[in-house]
Amino acid sequence: MEGESEPNLLSNGPNGMWPAPVVPCPTNPMVTPLLTDLYQFTMSYAYWKAGKHQERAVFDLYFRRNPFGGEYTVFAGLEECIRFIANFKISEDEISFLKETLPASCEDGFFEYLRGIDCSDVQVYAISEGYVVFPKVPLLRVEGPVAVVQLLETPFVNLVNYASLVTTNAARHRFVAGKSKLLLEFGLRRAQGPDGGIGASRYCYMGGFDATSNVAAGKLFGIPLRGTHSHAFVSSFMSPDEIVDKSLCSLDGSTTCEDFVALAQSWLNKIQRSKSLSNVFGETNQSELAAFTSYALAFPNNFLALVDTYEVMRSGIPNFCAVALALHELGYKATGIRLDSGDLAYLSCEARKFFCNVEKEFGVAGFGKMTITASNDLNEETLDALNKQGHEVDAFGIGTYLVTCYAQAALGCVFKLVEINNQPRIKLSEDVSKVSIPCKKRSYRLYGKEGYPLVDIMTGENEPSPKVGERLLCRHPFNESKRAYVVPQQVEELLKCYWPGNSGKQREELPSLKEIRNRCIRQLEQMRPDHMRKLNPTPYKVSVSGKLYEFIHFLWLNEAPVGELQ
Amino acid sequence: MEGESEPNLLSNGPNGMWPAPVVPCPTNPMVTPLLTDLYQFTMSYAYWKAGKHQERAVFDLYFRRNPFGGEYTVFAGLEECIRFIANFKISEDEISFLKETLPASCEDGFFEYLRGIDCSDVQVYAISEGYVVFPKVPLLRVEGPVAVVQLLETPFVNLVNYASLVTTNAARHRFVAGKSKLLLEFGLRRAQGPDGGIGASRYCYMGGFDATSNVAAGKLFGIPLRGTHSHAFVSSFMSPDEIVDKSLCSLDGSTTCEDFVALAQSWLNKIQRSKSLSNVFGETNQSELAAFTSYALAFPNNFLALVDTYEVMRSGIPNFCAVALALHELGYKATGIRLDSGDLAYLSCEARKFFCNVEKEFGVAGFGKMTITASNDLNEETLDALNKQGHEVDAFGIGTYLVTCYAQAALGCVFKLVEINNQPRIKLSEDVSKVSIPCKKRSYRLYGKEGYPLVDIMTGENEPSPKVGERLLCRHPFNESKRAYVVPQQVEELLKCYWPGNSGKQREELPSLKEIRNRCIRQLEQMRPDHMRKLNPTPYKVSVSGKLYEFIHFLWLNEAPVGELQ
Repeated sequence: MEGESEPNLLSNGPNGMWPAPVVPCPTNPMVTPLLTDLYQFTMSYAYWKAGKHQERAVFDLYFRRNPFGGEYTVFAGLEECIRFIANFKISEDEISFLKETLPASCEDGFFEYLRGIDCSDVQVYAISEGYVVFPKVPLLRVEGPVAVVQLLETPFVNLVNYASLVTTNAARHRFVAGKSKLLLEFGLRRAQGPDGGIGASRYCYMGGFDATSNVAAGKLFGIPLRGTHSHAFVSSFMSPDEIVDKSLCSLDGSTTCEDFVALAQSWLNKIQRSKSLSNVFGETNQSELAAFTSYALAFPNNFLALVDTYEVMRSGIPNFCAVALALHELGYKATGIRLDSGDLAYLSCEARKFFCNVEKEFGVAGFGKMTITASNDLNEETLDALNKQGHEVDAFGIGTYLVTCYAQAALGCVFKLVEINNQPRIKLSEDVSKVSIPCKKRSYRLYGKEGYPLVDIMTGENEPSPKVGERLLCRHPFNESKRAYVVPQQVEELLKCYWPGNSGKQREELPSLKEIRNRCIRQLEQMRPDHMRKLNPTPYKVSVSGKLYEFIHFLWLNEAPVGELQ
Repeated sequence: MEGESEPNLLSNGPNGMWPAPVVPCPTNPMVTPLLTDLYQFTMSYAYWKAGKHQERAVFDLYFRRNPFGGEYTVFAGLEECIRFIANFKISEDEISFLKETLPASCEDGFFEYLRGIDCSDVQVYAISEGYVVFPKVPLLRVEGPVAVVQLLETPFVNLVNYASLVTTNAARHRFVAGKSKLLLEFGLRRAQGPDGGIGASRYCYMGGFDATSNVAAGKLFGIPLRGTHSHAFVSSFMSPDEIVDKSLCSLDGSTTCEDFVALAQSWLNKIQRSKSLSNVFGETNQSELAAFTSYALAFPNNFLALVDTYEVMRSGIPNFCAVALALHELGYKATGIRLDSGDLAYLSCEARKFFCNVEKEFGVAGFGKMTITASNDLNEETLDALNKQGHEVDAFGIGTYLVTCYAQAALGCVFKLVEINNQPRIKLSEDVSKVSIPCKKRSYRLYGKEGYPLVDIMTGENEPSPKVGERLLCRHPFNESKRAYVVPQQVEELLKCYWPGNSGKQREELPSLKEIRNRCIRQLEQMRPDHMRKLNPTPYKVSVSGKLYEFIHFLWLNEAPVGELQ
């Protein structure tokens, strides 16, 4: 589906210099130039008032620490940033609001200036969306007039922070669950607001999930949709008597079963009479049987039942099997069950055993392979624990912990000035991890002999790029004793031109969500396993060139006031 | 501002029976009928297919546990729920998507049915937004045709969950900070998506914050806006030489200082020569001095400076004071400083001391009372720790931990069927805390002699309501030994009619955000302090009537399958 509605997000205009305005607006129409912090406007005014507003500034957007105790992050949110700047224009209504809001002393000329600005002289270089990324390395390098780029800080950080966090969370869940399991994102109801839900569905798919329950996200992004029924559906039935239209045509259309309710009941009786099956239960719940029967009548080809409304082994499973066997008699194949409470490892194994016994007892080939979905407050830890205990779950529906990133609800992306008017700038801090890396920079990923990425290195913009086969010194940006020589087998420049402004540069296409998802999966597979493991992963190295190292420390000494010990 | 653009969200139609369609759409245009889980539509189809779709169902929306280790929650999100149902209509485009998405076997009649539905025969009774609420007591009671109300589950839960969680978080921050401090919400950049940011600003204000940095939220909801400048502004300057327009007119317009840069510099020299002030610093950072001077030229009436770009006491504070004293000489009054790193308790005390010394040294009345704002990754715990250490902070800017609800990123609201076709329904679970309370219910808050709420009680819909001065048995819904007699001094019915559908009932007005905020503050003040304290708070009691208790347990036994021990 994606790709059809948006075949080509950007295309060059007639002169090939400036993209024609065909980039769609941000997915959420609430993303406007006012979706920013007030201080961006007060600073913009102060730049303007000082006559500095046109000074060319370079800002880096990066994060300082990987989330979830891990050693990697997946970058996401780029397309929304590009959509935002491609359509950046402050409306008259917004100008009026700003006029009311800023101090009355602000001069009219500034609002005139705001009226005229757009992002045509802004350039955005970025790592491609879906890439595995690391602390301190710029995800976006944004260059343009300081008073304009300043306004972009908050929306850019907002659009990247949660997107990258939840994509990373999804990738981590996939890592623990393994490739063979189906992963379903069920988080909409618990997400932080409507757009938290829609974003979560999009970015969890990007990070390796297979489908979502969120219909709006399915429509917007072409993500496969999944879902069956809830406890409410089961408890809305009183007894099989209330089912009026009981007939069901067989799959091949050759016969019609006039009383499917009776057919399901007769199968339940057979199960109850079977020695290998009956020892776990007495009477099953009749409203549950009614609900399952009714659901099967509605979806004979897609019968998947939630079996824990009353009791899984004493009611849900036998009722499900009765209806599934009735469907089978008419040529249909039931899909499976969902477990939403209790001991999922134990119950999934018991359910599997029961299905296998049904297969044997009634000679129904494949019944033992019925899909078992589990969905009760799952997260990385419970998936890991299930794996260790042993389980028979085929698909996991994951909600709350996934979409709210419960284990760590925010990624600390920042947006720091690194150069203005060709003058490199540094932001100092008593906390070394908060010192910014100055200069307009390039960054590269260097690959080793075995094909794994070895190290990311940042250099000044005009330094020669690392060469394959040539030895190169990589230095830790802030620890002088940490350095290593690397002979790269492959060199990949990380920052690509995603928004050329009026620079005339070629711009990177924005790929479809599915393409980004595939890229992300490839990226994750390509990493050396010890960086990816859950327990005590090895940090991936992030470095600077020798020249940049020297410059950082020169600037640092230059800017820091000298203390006086007393 | 609020109230002006939306003077009256609901007004009765000409016959007084049915509100005219003047309820605005949801704030976020992405909130549409498709913003729901797929299974709501599959269930809706199954109800329709079984001819049950018109059956009258009652669902309760409630949560099971208070968040953040506390014993209270603030209810928020109601207005958005009402906006959603007031405008509930599935578009042709959405119908087409559903047709593609649901199994091909689904009959056309269902889509015809979907085309026709709205919420005109749905009724929503709710607790008023901004109320303090407790586990298990319905926040919303939603009644209507089962196939319609089922579709509302996910959006309602989504709209209430985060709204209530973040409002509660804001209220908890206010509780720790105390009434006298200014609380500013600075979370947009770290929020979970754009709408997470806008929702956070709105609901933090509701929960007792004073202002936000989020311009879009200021415009949408009339929330006061705050913000000054960031580190980038400071580091964008190289030296005072680059300031071109150096003149500043005095506040009263009587004189013009032609070189404000020199004036600030001369004050810095005076500070440096002063014995009581100079002992903390040598040379201050010149780019910082330039930035402060420039910012003061832009905002002479609102000069608030971020003082930790280089070093607070050795550079930021002296530079700030120099510029503030220069402003003072021209009749202006500087606002204060912001600290964004380091030991906030220590630095705020040192800054205060310095300001007081400046007041004494230069005889500037009130200089010691300069506002000190702090803003570095603050949360309930750090506020508490600052209080214990002693500090001089007047205003707190709180972001990440507040808006992402980092301490607990989700509230577990659920939406459970409690009655269908006048038949009470129960949802069982091996975990007693997950058993639902059946029946269409009323709920009341009973107040004691001292004016505090004592207990919330749920009763069957047709039971007589509790009477002031009459002794009443309140029972724990699931623990037979927990019960108490209460003689209420005041009885408040909690559920009010916020969406009458076509029932002809009077509907409650939706108040403005500011009114809800005031209500919320009153509600919080009214609670007995031991329920509200951070450490080991006393649980507030939630109960059912004796009659409802008996009925719950009758139904439970009736529905649960009898086990067979082996």
